Amino acid sequence: MSMMKAAVFVEAGRIELADKPIPQPGPNDALVRITTTTICGTDVHILKGEYPVAKGLTIGHEPVGIIEKLGSNVKGYEEGQRVIAGAICPDFSSYASQDGVSSQADGCSCHGYKPMGGWRFGNTIDGTQAEYVLVPDAQANLAPVPDALTDEQVLMCPDIMSTGFGGAEKADIKIGDIVAIFAQGPIGLCATAGAKLRGASCIIVVDGVDSRLEIARQMGADVTLNFRNVDVVEEILKITGGRGVDAAIEALGTQLTFEQSLRVLKPGGTLSSLGVYSQDLSIPLGSFLAGLGDHKIITSLCPGGKERMRRLLNVVASGRVDLAPLVTHEYKLDAIVDAYDLFANQRDGVLKIAIKP
Amino acid sequence: MSMMKAAVFVEAGRIELADKPIPQPGPNDALVRITTTTICGTDVHILKGEYPVAKGLTIGHEPVGIIEKLGSNVKGYEEGQRVIAGAICPDFSSYASQDGVSSQADGCSCHGYKPMGGWRFGNTIDGTQAEYVLVPDAQANLAPVPDALTDEQVLMCPDIMSTGFGGAEKADIKIGDIVAIFAQGPIGLCATAGAKLRGASCIIVVDGVDSRLEIARQMGADVTLNFRNVDVVEEILKITGGRGVDAAIEALGTQLTFEQSLRVLKPGGTLSSLGVYSQDLSIPLGSFLAGLGDHKIITSLCPGGKERMRRLLNVVASGRVDLAPLVTHEYKLDAIVDAYDLFANQRDGVLKIAIKP
Amino acid sequence: MSMMKAAVFVEAGRIELADKPIPQPGPNDALVRITTTTICGTDVHILKGEYPVAKGLTIGHEPVGIIEKLGSNVKGYEEGQRVIAGAICPDFSSYASQDGVSSQADGCSCHGYKPMGGWRFGNTIDGTQAEYVLVPDAQANLAPVPDALTDEQVLMCPDIMSTGFGGAEKADIKIGDIVAIFAQGPIGLCATAGAKLRGASCIIVVDGVDSRLEIARQMGADVTLNFRNVDVVEEILKITGGRGVDAAIEALGTQLTFEQSLRVLKPGGTLSSLGVYSQDLSIPLGSFLAGLGDHKIITSLCPGGKERMRRLLNVVASGRVDLAPLVTHEYKLDAIVDAYDLFANQRDGVLKIAIKP
Amino acid sequence: MSMMKAAVFVEAGRIELADKPIPQPGPNDALVRITTTTICGTDVHILKGEYPVAKGLTIGHEPVGIIEKLGSNVKGYEEGQRVIAGAICPDFSSYASQDGVSSQADGCSCHGYKPMGGWRFGNTIDGTQAEYVLVPDAQANLAPVPDALTDEQVLMCPDIMSTGFGGAEKADIKIGDIVAIFAQGPIGLCATAGAKLRGASCIIVVDGVDSRLEIARQMGADVTLNFRNVDVVEEILKITGGRGVDAAIEALGTQLTFEQSLRVLKPGGTLSSLGVYSQDLSIPLGSFLAGLGDHKIITSLCPGGKERMRRLLNVVASGRVDLAPLVTHEYKLDAIVDAYDLFANQRDGVLKIAIKP
Repeated sequence: MSMMKAAVFVEAGRIELADKPIPQPGPNDALVRITTTTICGTDVHILKGEYPVAKGLTIGHEPVGIIEKLGSNVKGYEEGQRVIAGAICPDFSSYASQDGVSSQADGCSCHGYKPMGGWRFGNTIDGTQAEYVLVPDAQANLAPVPDALTDEQVLMCPDIMSTGFGGAEKADIKIGDIVAIFAQGPIGLCATAGAKLRGASCIIVVDGVDSRLEIARQMGADVTLNFRNVDVVEEILKITGGRGVDAAIEALGTQLTFEQSLRVLKPGGTLSSLGVYSQDLSIPLGSFLAGLGDHKIITSLCPGGKERMRRLLNVVASGRVDLAPLVTHEYKLDAIVDAYDLFANQRDGVLKIAIKP
Repeated sequence: MSMMKAAVFVEAGRIELADKPIPQPGPNDALVRITTTTICGTDVHILKGEYPVAKGLTIGHEPVGIIEKLGSNVKGYEEGQRVIAGAICPDFSSYASQDGVSSQADGCSCHGYKPMGGWRFGNTIDGTQAEYVLVPDAQANLAPVPDALTDEQVLMCPDIMSTGFGGAEKADIKIGDIVAIFAQGPIGLCATAGAKLRGASCIIVVDGVDSRLEIARQMGADVTLNFRNVDVVEEILKITGGRGVDAAIEALGTQLTFEQSLRVLKPGGTLSSLGVYSQDLSIPLGSFLAGLGDHKIITSLCPGGKERMRRLLNVVASGRVDLAPLVTHEYKLDAIVDAYDLFANQRDGVLKIAIKP
Repeated sequence: MSMMKAAVFVEAGRIELADKPIPQPGPNDALVRITTTTICGTDVHILKGEYPVAKGLTIGHEPVGIIEKLGSNVKGYEEGQRVIAGAICPDFSSYASQDGVSSQADGCSCHGYKPMGGWRFGNTIDGTQAEYVLVPDAQANLAPVPDALTDEQVLMCPDIMSTGFGGAEKADIKIGDIVAIFAQGPIGLCATAGAKLRGASCIIVVDGVDSRLEIARQMGADVTLNFRNVDVVEEILKITGGRGVDAAIEALGTQLTFEQSLRVLKPGGTLSSLGVYSQDLSIPLGSFLAGLGDHKIITSLCPGGKERMRRLLNVVASGRVDLAPLVTHEYKLDAIVDAYDLFANQRDGVLKIAIKP
Repeated sequence: MSMMKAAVFVEAGRIELADKPIPQPGPNDALVRITTTTICGTDVHILKGEYPVAKGLTIGHEPVGIIEKLGSNVKGYEEGQRVIAGAICPDFSSYASQDGVSSQADGCSCHGYKPMGGWRFGNTIDGTQAEYVLVPDAQANLAPVPDALTDEQVLMCPDIMSTGFGGAEKADIKIGDIVAIFAQGPIGLCATAGAKLRGASCIIVVDGVDSRLEIARQMGADVTLNFRNVDVVEEILKITGGRGVDAAIEALGTQLTFEQSLRVLKPGGTLSSLGVYSQDLSIPLGSFLAGLGDHKIITSLCPGGKERMRRLLNVVASGRVDLAPLVTHEYKLDAIVDAYDLFANQRDGVLKIAIKP
């Protein structure tokens, strides 16, 4: 039995490289040889034991690679083809998917839902920080990568680009909108790029790290606010002449950014929430006009599937958006423990790390 | 100068009948002689001093009456015509209205919003619990009442029917949906009727008063739950086989009902909130899946304007919905202090009181 | 090899009962023993040779039956369970489905579409007018039938109910809308029921057969017009005070009904087209205001999949809609040639025929 | 009585400069002194007698100017302020506007519509090719111009930018869409800019004039096709791998471009039609799959109102879109007859002409 290297969760605080057998694809799977993957903020939650996964599970959910072997039911692909798959690999035959929420999944009861059930890599099945990964429901989830694009150019598609753009899409941005985006980590930066793609005419971004605010400008931000220097709520209300923004995107997952998002939002506006929260949220009475402000609060999980990936690849290929500045570092898979250390401690201006098996 | 009777706010705890001059319409106003009006839960908040209005203001925002005099710019109506106007009388020329939120209004800055600015009767201008009322922006707000309909039949259109139906509309109900509605006061009952009108195939309603649950059945409820007898969250999850409801409507304005609405909502579902809250809200982490559940929370204020009223009058005229059972009492305007006493204390199974000047 | 009876297309003008082997399910299929099926207008087009299918193909696309055998990949069902499947059995893993049009399908090129590709029964694979049928992509398409419902009650779900309701859904009907529906055959009648379910307050239906207009009243029609007696365009404009209807549904597929739908439609209104046309359509210049009327014309194909079926079954179970009056006749499968003769010639007030193997 | 110069319709073939009294504003009007205006394709239809207007009417509907005098009811503006108003000046109090179609208007009957009723300048009231113009419903229609923007920069906002962007908005473009746009006159070019603003990743444009195709590239076109050199339907299907485009925008108003738009559209796609047609349209049976292709055809008229203008001005101010290349010529109002001659005959690469009183 052939063996491979894989980054596995050992216990809270420890992700280590281990040897595992290369898996064999079932009829609906594809075995993909990873050429590039990366580490996500969620992986750090797993590392710290804040999000529970099974011991021994391979971590990671952002694959770029080559089809090594196709399951017998998977048609229209070829072994040797370069592909990506979304961080979320939906089962599109499920009630949940047919009902329009493919990132969720069916549960144990006949048509109950399994929350976040579409997220399988590095959560409920072995993930992508390894030499090989099995892509489930491959027919629905494998997306061919155009030859002209490098691994690095498409590495953001599976998760942060899909999530960030999704945040802009759910914010229902209209041409001429003023949009505020709270936090400019990788997902917030993609939300900025997404807001520009949807026609916002003024994008105000907030973060505490100047280097991120600078990259935000490259992504389309018109106004950058460092919350260490200004009262961002006051400033945004001033910029908008007291009107508030048409849409706010929360891209961190804290009470403070959630609340600020509401406080700068016009009556009738949409708060698109991308953050993963770790505690109960409070909605201050005044911030949503006691329930009479025609506000919308929309949470969302990263959209997946091959059609979503195809569209994101189109965007990359068009040159409309260049996410290359987000890949700040590169590590060998062998050195992934060091990469986690760098990323978890946010040293050296790290945004995303290309991991190469 | 001719005088009229009007119910005015004196101080917290006191609404009294007073004599006031009959107002004269400006060029865009209409003077309407009230034939029937009613008391709303919001008026009770005003009575108790929980919602501040100017001393001496005439209360009430639900007018049925006869056009007494038209402003010089108001075209297409006739004096003597029977009309209603919405509780919310939007200024449709405002930035807010043109932006799709006509229940809000423009504020002091050039295009800032005035939250809830569309609500003027008994809030920022004299209201309808009087012999006469001035309807502002009359061209946009006067809706003729078909002869075949009685005052009582159309008395719910200006506020609770528009609000309750709006709650069902914002819940984005689809054919075959399972919907839960929390609280079956007048607005919750209208939300029930609205959910049926939109094609829900199973409407589960929750209240603590059996007589209201009975009326809810007349409005279209399929399952009625008295929260004094059952754990409603557990029961609703059981009824839906663990899946949760497609949409939940909150029609009270408390932490408990808001939270229950979230707890019974499927991933991807919509919480349509109608209640007027009086304190900060808490969103428990689990109830919205840490922000990853594709949930939507939508608040809304009663839609107004003559086109909205025309459609609601169409529904009444069609016989699709009969809200007559909601008018449980009738009082003369002279006895309105007694009517407030009955209504504020929710005695005698009161739902809505027809007030007749 | 076990044999079964099946109604097969022989040549234009001839559908005959033939003996065929009972098929064996592949890993993603289910073999269903048909207990009730029916004949659709489309089948008559096939019979007449107007819509080409392969010689020897089993016709029919509306199955009610019992699971006889499940493919090895199909989970969560049991042999012996009573089920339906939609007339359209989408492949939800396709690009087309993931893109929101599951009734279409992927084509030969990597992500081109195969128009109407979701329609397989009696079109590209053997259909349901037989003792047994193979349901493709069974995991996505089998919908369990509640015990309390009879075959006749659910027989309309796979096609005409899904199509007719879909027509009302695509018409974007709002509470208080006035809707006109052209033709009251089985699909038009279901569109009438659907329009009522969505909250139309006035439904005007048009047909040339008085008995159909009578059934239309049971389905929710408020005004019935026999085009043999009145100028329907003139009449509808009169009823609407010159305004036109908010939405029109075309349910036949002719130039005349399409054109009338446009002529009675208000500026800004939606024409939802369900008919299968057999010739080029003409849009008269005046009927759509030279392209400046803010009109929407939306065509649609019957939605399928187990979630759609689940919702329709919910509607039937709720008693909101009773389509029993549409099943006017019953025939044994052995007599299906006679049934076609009755149905194709529209004798004896036939609407739908229950066919029993 | 003070007099002014105005370009008036005399008879088919003749628009001439005439002297007219400077009008006085009624209570809801504003008198605006025109500083820049332009000629639209619609004006040429009027010139040729193809679209009937009253003899002696002042033509033109694209105003940039200075408020000279405000009606007594118009609040929040100042005389001397620079403003624009939309080509369409809606009456937002109308049933039509409250119903969501503000470019249409109420008709003679109580709530019938007046088609295109929002278009008043140079159609039903005196227009903008004059020294002064009365803006009706000024409170709703006057939009202040930021000081930093020149007249030329904002001259496209009232009509072609609003129309063209509207065409992209109605096409429901999604991130990653492939869009085809037929005709690259001023409106088609704005549709191209609008499609880019909405996130299309591949914009294919079609015209017969190479210089227009070149400007189209500046507006965001990725692929330009000259219909004189290629079979555009075949070419677009080839580019899209047989799939067809996600959305097509028709920006001319002919049978050919309408039909080509349909022929390149994927099943489930949207055809957004902007053209003003002058004859009946034919929909070839195959082009819309006999009515079973889940196609949407949406026509629209230019959106107006001060909120729309505010948003378009935001876009111009942001630098996201630069329409300066579209203003190819400048004429004095005195020479407007020559300007019409140039524009009507499309000489000298003319796109839009700035007219200066």
